[in-house]
Amino acid sequence: MNWLDEITFDENGLVPAIAQDASSGKILMMAWMNRQSLQLTAEKKEAVYWSRSRAKLWHKGEESGHIQKVVDLRFDCDQDVILIKVEQQGGIACHTGRESCFYRQLQGDQWVEVEQVIKDPKDIYSQKDK
Amino acid sequence: MNWLDEITFDENGLVPAIAQDASSGKILMMAWMNRQSLQLTAEKKEAVYWSRSRAKLWHKGEESGHIQKVVDLRFDCDQDVILIKVEQQGGIACHTGRESCFYRQLQGDQWVEVEQVIKDPKDIYSQKDK
Repeated sequence: MNWLDEITFDENGLVPAIAQDASSGKILMMAWMNRQSLQLTAEKKEAVYWSRSRAKLWHKGEESGHIQKVVDLRFDCDQDVILIKVEQQGGIACHTGRESCFYRQLQGDQWVEVEQVIKDPKDIYSQKDK
Repeated sequence: MNWLDEITFDENGLVPAIAQDASSGKILMMAWMNRQSLQLTAEKKEAVYWSRSRAKLWHKGEESGHIQKVVDLRFDCDQDVILIKVEQQGGIACHTGRESCFYRQLQGDQWVEVEQVIKDPKDIYSQKDK
């Protein structure tokens, strides 16, 4: 039995994939993988997602250089969520130029930005990476 | 504008919600929230998910006692994923009796269980919590 056969993909053939920084433990982002992107992730040991907006494979960092080197790949008890621990090249996972996509925190009844932009997206992308 | 209005729920009215241990940084689980469960999570400061299998609100720990006290609530750049940092009561998030649901790791082309059962599920539940 192929290890990929144990994953339950949803009705669109996708699973959520959480990327966590292997050193700091910080959650960097969540994106989606289809069977092919998950297989490529395991083979390359670099995160390859499925871009729902562009409807194509998305080798994270292909434009920005912000590759995610995978050091641990897990799935959960329900077999329908992937967790990868990664070494985030460039220290930036978010297309806004921040380390993490989770930069807005609920304070009272307001969302507040609590993480700084490390690099201006204009200086990261020729085209948008996401 | 209500802070909930800034969240993009999917075609089923749900968003993925990642629960991370606030102290260790460990990813405990990923489940789903609808608008009401997210509001309740913020109000109670305890994780309330939407159980897709039972099609009802799921106050995590309601049977097991393994409540998740929320100390940080964030959303991502695309406004469609929630991250909560929690104090996991009992030190067990998974219905299998493990700390984390992500206990299977890909080693070569095999999934290997790499985390121990802390407590037998028989001793945790009168009925299944999930």
